[in-house]
Amino acid sequence: MTVAVHGVGTSHFGRQPHRDLVALAADAVQEAFLDAGTDDIDAVWVGTVFGPPGVAQRVLRAMGVTGIPVVTVENACASGTTAFAEAHEAVRTGRHGRVLALGLEQMSTAFAGAITPEPTDPEGRSGLALPALYAMAAARYLHLGLATPEQLAAVSVKNHAHALHNPRAQYSGRHTVAEVLASRMIADPLTLLQCCPTSDGAAAAVLAPATGGAREVTVRGVALRSGAPWNHRSPHVWGHDLVRRTAMDAFAAAELLDATDVDVAEVHDAFTIGEIVTTEALGFVAPGDGGKAAAAGVTALGGVLPVNPSGGLLSRGHPLGATGLAQLAEIVWQLRGEARGRQVEGARLGLVETMGGGVSVLDGNSCVVAVLEAP
Amino acid sequence: MTVAVHGVGTSHFGRQPHRDLVALAADAVQEAFLDAGTDDIDAVWVGTVFGPPGVAQRVLRAMGVTGIPVVTVENACASGTTAFAEAHEAVRTGRHGRVLALGLEQMSTAFAGAITPEPTDPEGRSGLALPALYAMAAARYLHLGLATPEQLAAVSVKNHAHALHNPRAQYSGRHTVAEVLASRMIADPLTLLQCCPTSDGAAAAVLAPATGGAREVTVRGVALRSGAPWNHRSPHVWGHDLVRRTAMDAFAAAELLDATDVDVAEVHDAFTIGEIVTTEALGFVAPGDGGKAAAAGVTALGGVLPVNPSGGLLSRGHPLGATGLAQLAEIVWQLRGEARGRQVEGARLGLVETMGGGVSVLDGNSCVVAVLEAP
Repeated sequence: MTVAVHGVGTSHFGRQPHRDLVALAADAVQEAFLDAGTDDIDAVWVGTVFGPPGVAQRVLRAMGVTGIPVVTVENACASGTTAFAEAHEAVRTGRHGRVLALGLEQMSTAFAGAITPEPTDPEGRSGLALPALYAMAAARYLHLGLATPEQLAAVSVKNHAHALHNPRAQYSGRHTVAEVLASRMIADPLTLLQCCPTSDGAAAAVLAPATGGAREVTVRGVALRSGAPWNHRSPHVWGHDLVRRTAMDAFAAAELLDATDVDVAEVHDAFTIGEIVTTEALGFVAPGDGGKAAAAGVTALGGVLPVNPSGGLLSRGHPLGATGLAQLAEIVWQLRGEARGRQVEGARLGLVETMGGGVSVLDGNSCVVAVLEAP
Repeated sequence: MTVAVHGVGTSHFGRQPHRDLVALAADAVQEAFLDAGTDDIDAVWVGTVFGPPGVAQRVLRAMGVTGIPVVTVENACASGTTAFAEAHEAVRTGRHGRVLALGLEQMSTAFAGAITPEPTDPEGRSGLALPALYAMAAARYLHLGLATPEQLAAVSVKNHAHALHNPRAQYSGRHTVAEVLASRMIADPLTLLQCCPTSDGAAAAVLAPATGGAREVTVRGVALRSGAPWNHRSPHVWGHDLVRRTAMDAFAAAELLDATDVDVAEVHDAFTIGEIVTTEALGFVAPGDGGKAAAAGVTALGGVLPVNPSGGLLSRGHPLGATGLAQLAEIVWQLRGEARGRQVEGARLGLVETMGGGVSVLDGNSCVVAVLEAP
């Protein structure tokens, strides 16, 4: 059965310690219900990383969604897109008729600064938090001449500029490359403006069989994978191969040979280097051309293949469990032509990619890639 | 496609703070792989409540299971059976060929005493921990004359006696009703021996299409539900209706009219009153007869319908995320005739029920019921 996204919704993104997950989730779900024209659903998948046990039932109860199957999933930064993948599968196979996928996270009340790694992991033992893991990939790109500091910064400049047109983004701004490079160093060579912020938010989508409706965005294919052991001697940095393998699965499911026909994408730019590696891994640009493409405007609004028109994780924000569904909402708006000041004109095929990381002995923890098509 | 359980495995259950989740999971998974005759799997669903983010990838990596889809699920005490339900669905629909379901939890290093409720819930605001929630149901049963203190205690006597034959159980013993009633009061009328202990453990199952193999236990039906708002004025205590509705779904999936043909069951006896309410909700006994049945030996080994031959949560232990798959492992052993000293002779049809609770405004958070058939 072909599945379509019938409605999406999100909260505002940002530090919102005065609001709770019930309020954030209600913003997203009520908008998604309104968008879908119904609140009559048969099951729910909820993605969260740090939400307390039972948080799904708690927030759903507050909006009167009870008595149906509810499954909470965790897959690091890909938790929201994992909820989407599971909801999609439930509709595709006829397990349920209409399914809500919900992602939520409140980081501001739980963390100060970077998420600390588990002390039993190699990262934990060596004191490597996630910014440092990405910084090592960035340093390798610089060392091999695959990117320059200015090209890294160009990703931040682009995504902050995109977010100027996204009223729900946490941050936005007309930064220069020099300003990005001059911002406080977090993990060399990644400066503050090259790292995603601490965010609270929620996002939701209503999935049901495709009926050819004028506002239905069709799901062409979804793939989910977890990381294989990372070959540290490979020519690729950490995370590349997981994204590439997952994308190949998603393209196969969507009956595409490659990314050629993709018009717009939301990808996992938790750090600037992440977007560069991901655009290469997805085949948007040739290996080693990710930084050049960002600097040349290829991946900017108005370019050949706009990436992260919402502002991405860098600017919209990164409430972990919500991120994947926030990416999905943006692509749905883009494919319906409803993205207002940040619309990619004529976008027909969109892609969402989220990569959850954390353990360098694995090539990423988990990754989800979805391909969607305009009504 | 008909699904069968091809292998199961568990760790020892008990307080094991000196072991970690990697070691506990390895015990369960390696036994399940050996039992299934293969370690070649295509996807994994992992159930845990308090396991840290990424724990699934971490424990699987340690045993060389990488590069495939991994989804971690949380559904309170039903997290393990939720992983089972999702794995079952993946095989049933042909999404994956052979799937591992894994449940794990280390409570001893995380908690001292009862799990505290969320401060934003009615329970949290009024200081009600889970033992108190169950105690209120027990008090109501006593008040209405639906059970006596001695009948409550009989459940504990029975399950501790069952566990004498389960070498992996956390506790066991030949207690008398008087001893159970004389043990320290936890939440009136529930005494210490009527409450499940703090446990660490893991359990696993390998699912694949049924091929008619001599050791394959067929999955006849699985159902998963979350709680509806609880009508406090209903004649039923908290949790009853959720278990009943989920059981009806599972019986329908298994093409059974009711529980008549069930020969052996593992049910959620986190507290003695839980088993009494559940045997009534499942239709094993008439409404109000759960306590009498326990006291009369109906639900004991050798009785008409043995319930919790493993010792149940009360005696085997209750490592939250592992519990559902530990229950499943017991039923698989029973249906294969491999349960040694606690074997229910000639058992052909088995049932697993787990109910995850915590919020009294809902009639339970989540429930899974599965019906399985002997080879």
